[in-house]
Amino acid sequence: MRVVLAVGAHPDDIELGCAGSLALHKMNGDRVYLLVLTKGEASGKLEVREKECRKAAKMLGADALFFGGLRDTHVSDGRETIDVIERIVTKVKPDLIYAPASKDTHQDHRNAGQASMSAGRHCKAILLYEGASTQRDFTPQVFVDIDKTFKLKRWVTRAFGSQVNNGNGGYSHAVKAIEGLAKFRGYQAGVDVAEAFEVGKFIFEVENNHGR
Amino acid sequence: MRVVLAVGAHPDDIELGCAGSLALHKMNGDRVYLLVLTKGEASGKLEVREKECRKAAKMLGADALFFGGLRDTHVSDGRETIDVIERIVTKVKPDLIYAPASKDTHQDHRNAGQASMSAGRHCKAILLYEGASTQRDFTPQVFVDIDKTFKLKRWVTRAFGSQVNNGNGGYSHAVKAIEGLAKFRGYQAGVDVAEAFEVGKFIFEVENNHGR
Amino acid sequence: MRVVLAVGAHPDDIELGCAGSLALHKMNGDRVYLLVLTKGEASGKLEVREKECRKAAKMLGADALFFGGLRDTHVSDGRETIDVIERIVTKVKPDLIYAPASKDTHQDHRNAGQASMSAGRHCKAILLYEGASTQRDFTPQVFVDIDKTFKLKRWVTRAFGSQVNNGNGGYSHAVKAIEGLAKFRGYQAGVDVAEAFEVGKFIFEVENNHGR
Amino acid sequence: MRVVLAVGAHPDDIELGCAGSLALHKMNGDRVYLLVLTKGEASGKLEVREKECRKAAKMLGADALFFGGLRDTHVSDGRETIDVIERIVTKVKPDLIYAPASKDTHQDHRNAGQASMSAGRHCKAILLYEGASTQRDFTPQVFVDIDKTFKLKRWVTRAFGSQVNNGNGGYSHAVKAIEGLAKFRGYQAGVDVAEAFEVGKFIFEVENNHGR
Amino acid sequence: MRVVLAVGAHPDDIELGCAGSLALHKMNGDRVYLLVLTKGEASGKLEVREKECRKAAKMLGADALFFGGLRDTHVSDGRETIDVIERIVTKVKPDLIYAPASKDTHQDHRNAGQASMSAGRHCKAILLYEGASTQRDFTPQVFVDIDKTFKLKRWVTRAFGSQVNNGNGGYSHAVKAIEGLAKFRGYQAGVDVAEAFEVGKFIFEVENNHGR
Amino acid sequence: MRVVLAVGAHPDDIELGCAGSLALHKMNGDRVYLLVLTKGEASGKLEVREKECRKAAKMLGADALFFGGLRDTHVSDGRETIDVIERIVTKVKPDLIYAPASKDTHQDHRNAGQASMSAGRHCKAILLYEGASTQRDFTPQVFVDIDKTFKLKRWVTRAFGSQVNNGNGGYSHAVKAIEGLAKFRGYQAGVDVAEAFEVGKFIFEVENNHGR
Repeated sequence: MRVVLAVGAHPDDIELGCAGSLALHKMNGDRVYLLVLTKGEASGKLEVREKECRKAAKMLGADALFFGGLRDTHVSDGRETIDVIERIVTKVKPDLIYAPASKDTHQDHRNAGQASMSAGRHCKAILLYEGASTQRDFTPQVFVDIDKTFKLKRWVTRAFGSQVNNGNGGYSHAVKAIEGLAKFRGYQAGVDVAEAFEVGKFIFEVENNHGR
Repeated sequence: MRVVLAVGAHPDDIELGCAGSLALHKMNGDRVYLLVLTKGEASGKLEVREKECRKAAKMLGADALFFGGLRDTHVSDGRETIDVIERIVTKVKPDLIYAPASKDTHQDHRNAGQASMSAGRHCKAILLYEGASTQRDFTPQVFVDIDKTFKLKRWVTRAFGSQVNNGNGGYSHAVKAIEGLAKFRGYQAGVDVAEAFEVGKFIFEVENNHGR
Repeated sequence: MRVVLAVGAHPDDIELGCAGSLALHKMNGDRVYLLVLTKGEASGKLEVREKECRKAAKMLGADALFFGGLRDTHVSDGRETIDVIERIVTKVKPDLIYAPASKDTHQDHRNAGQASMSAGRHCKAILLYEGASTQRDFTPQVFVDIDKTFKLKRWVTRAFGSQVNNGNGGYSHAVKAIEGLAKFRGYQAGVDVAEAFEVGKFIFEVENNHGR
Repeated sequence: MRVVLAVGAHPDDIELGCAGSLALHKMNGDRVYLLVLTKGEASGKLEVREKECRKAAKMLGADALFFGGLRDTHVSDGRETIDVIERIVTKVKPDLIYAPASKDTHQDHRNAGQASMSAGRHCKAILLYEGASTQRDFTPQVFVDIDKTFKLKRWVTRAFGSQVNNGNGGYSHAVKAIEGLAKFRGYQAGVDVAEAFEVGKFIFEVENNHGR
Repeated sequence: MRVVLAVGAHPDDIELGCAGSLALHKMNGDRVYLLVLTKGEASGKLEVREKECRKAAKMLGADALFFGGLRDTHVSDGRETIDVIERIVTKVKPDLIYAPASKDTHQDHRNAGQASMSAGRHCKAILLYEGASTQRDFTPQVFVDIDKTFKLKRWVTRAFGSQVNNGNGGYSHAVKAIEGLAKFRGYQAGVDVAEAFEVGKFIFEVENNHGR
Repeated sequence: MRVVLAVGAHPDDIELGCAGSLALHKMNGDRVYLLVLTKGEASGKLEVREKECRKAAKMLGADALFFGGLRDTHVSDGRETIDVIERIVTKVKPDLIYAPASKDTHQDHRNAGQASMSAGRHCKAILLYEGASTQRDFTPQVFVDIDKTFKLKRWVTRAFGSQVNNGNGGYSHAVKAIEGLAKFRGYQAGVDVAEAFEVGKFIFEVENNHGR
């Protein structure tokens, strides 16, 4: 049994980025914690977004959902954000952290990624997930085959119904984009559908890893 | 009216990478030439692959299809490949070249991209398209909205029926992956479906460009 | 007719970086807006610098000059700067943004570039111009032939007469450096004089673009 | 049980780069194959170097040692090298390949790395090890704790006694350097001694991986 | 005689990164100044860390030790940090600055490096030293042979006795890691032990440099 | 007294890239050797280009000019090129090598740079100069103030009179571009005119370097 922590800047970041992998962790008996740094109040009603986020966490079967209490669009890469993440890291002691990849034009994503690298410096693994629309430079290195959990991912991402018009053609557009991406990453990985990650850090345990 | 040249290492590389954009060029009265460096004989019967390639070119409405006569999986980034491309560049005098992006684990793609940059050094624009399965590091910079030609692209890519089992789950898998990618790149660009490119070189003509 | 917005951190940044291209836009009937985030008070008298900036804007024929009201040398890549730029983006609705390239050792340039990428996320094109002295890592991708407006650029940049001793050998030195650079970038582009840009984002409109 | 293939350009490249990890694989019951592309005849007597290489393979407990038959200092990134590696990949069907990292000033290392990425495109994982002296740009991403096998690594690397004066101060110098590096990488990973890798590709199997 | 300024974010950063080079400067009659931006109070008692830092400076023979008065783990890359460094730059007028390399997961290191590049923009040379544990991406470009001062470096780094348990296995672990690294970097440079640097900026004076 | 070797792929590459620095070396009593890998026969008459090259070498005061005998546009990064360079390295034993920077779209420049890094692996310093027209990605790190030798550089580069129409607007265009670049690089370095270099490798000798 492992402990997994996923960090996102806004409600739905985690789900779009790595819901498939998190669901696999749950299927395998791992504990899965979610930390959402802001409530996404800059692009929707705070209460609605929070509610959707809780619903999605439940659908994923997350063991707990934490909110970081930071202000949407004001997430820094400095001490304040690092502290928020460190507090949860200390509490749940994750073996593996999922965090946003850092070369992103959205300041909150970029900084959440950087801060997770700082806060997770003593953890064994940090995998950096792909952002939906604002990522520019991403090198897929690690792939997770999400064939068994793709349906769940589609279902979970649809929990964010309020995000219907975010200037990129509506949230249903985002969901289709993410599904399209899963097929492309799957093809690159030699499977049907996959999520891709950059490697922040990964302690490879030969004795446990990758076996059969 | 512009002249456009698309360079690919194998039959189907061009179509998967930029058929949507090429079809748009045709819709706008541009001349479109295709140069396929090898006949892809390493992963299929040469005659079959050549035939499919000719069929796809016709479907796209290409003004001519040239074969470079290089050997599949032996494309270099040296003089031989540059010569092949330069000969066509001298002949058709393209305003714009589409070529494979260079950070690719497939040696033929990598080298075809490098050689196109050399051979096209006097052209006004070189856009580098995204490879289907072997691309690792790609930074989407330029986007083309392919909404009007997406159906044609799907139809054209299906011309490569022989590629049914290329170790990545079959060609229909490739086609779905490319369609998924179009949705993801579209989302990043703020449109429905898009093709994305890296910029090799681009002479931006303020007087003609991007206007309405 | 297009709408163009140029963003700079200090008076003279825009002019040194892309005055030639902006003047071409004006020649072609586009609307050109300037947004200068600070008044450059850290290296000169605020009133003098503001006055020079207004004069240069007039010489360029800019349709309006906005000041962002940020503090010189304190420009962040966070919410405050993004808000300032977003306000103008919302107001003028640019088709194309010119902003500073981001790999710069001057914090204001670096952050103005990052913030423009965030604030301009729904625009069709963001081109990143080359800084005069503090840029370190710059990859010329897009070139604009400024032959027709080079004289004007030289004249406009000389409006910043107060910048006579900024530790890099005086402003006339800067102007000569920028003129030298124009020749070098021109040579790379195959023309006499050019301005070079990195691509932040570029929606390439096949139907309008690059034609004749 | 997994199958592991380590690829090196010369005798001793594999041992210096990842002997500690390979020994761990053996301890865990995995099969370990070695493929050495040349016999290192450019910096020593071919027979001596081959003999040392066989001895080291035995000390490591490798299940087989293959020689690629390429010419020292003439390893390309093209078809010839890819073929050599593909033949062994087809034969042993590795789950995991260890190959040299590619940003190396030694042409053989650089090309062996590139060719391994091509040849191993259908494998689940490719980890790229750190070269002893000619590596310039290396980003440690994956760490293996080699505490249990460090002594064996020291012992194995000492099998290459002929390499006593290779212009970098002798082979004993190389061995000390590699031991020093293990301590530094260990410190970065939070353990005593480690080997570090870049990720070429890694299919992360949530159900098997990293657990306890 | 030259003037050298070394900048560090915390007590012991400078010593681990470049004590060997600084000691060489002292041996050659240069003036050596140290600027430590914080007192490292986040991982130890402020008074103890300050005392150790003063002791190490004395052992190195530094001409002066300045403290920047910033708050540990809160070092920014903005105006505040730049001001602190600029003040010392103005005071001691360094020919050469040693500062932390910037691709580091520790925010203080990253920002201290960026701010040094800004503050030192009029200096002739800025060399960026390698961090002990949190550096991820470092390209060794400049090497200093520290054979004559390695013993002193070992002795100096041991002055930081309070850092006995910093989560990476204790400070004696750090010291061993740094010694191991010196052997590896030495091997890359063709000498016994070396310190490695990235180049921020370097005015190469042909008439004085590198001669005999 | 030092020994300096400059490597170029074609006649005029060295002169455009680093004639100012080489002339400074001569002024300071260093020995300066030139190695030109091809005779540039692809863009001019071999005899004419050779003659111009000899003339320029004489004007620079080079101690010897070697031709590598490779074929223009066919320079590889493999053994053949490395051998040619190694032979001269063994003969003249340079302390410092000037070679072309490697991120260049011209295959000969790219490969000459790579091969120089291999061939010069035991030298103390390798500085990589900026190419005239085909360089794309260049990070200026090291600057040489060429104020004292700029006139000579202008005079020397004009020796290549045959290069009057190379598709980039003629050689006089190249010369002006290079002079413009010198002003820009000078401005970045805080001097009038400069040549800029990337660092391949640099053993920094504290006891001799950068002093007064």
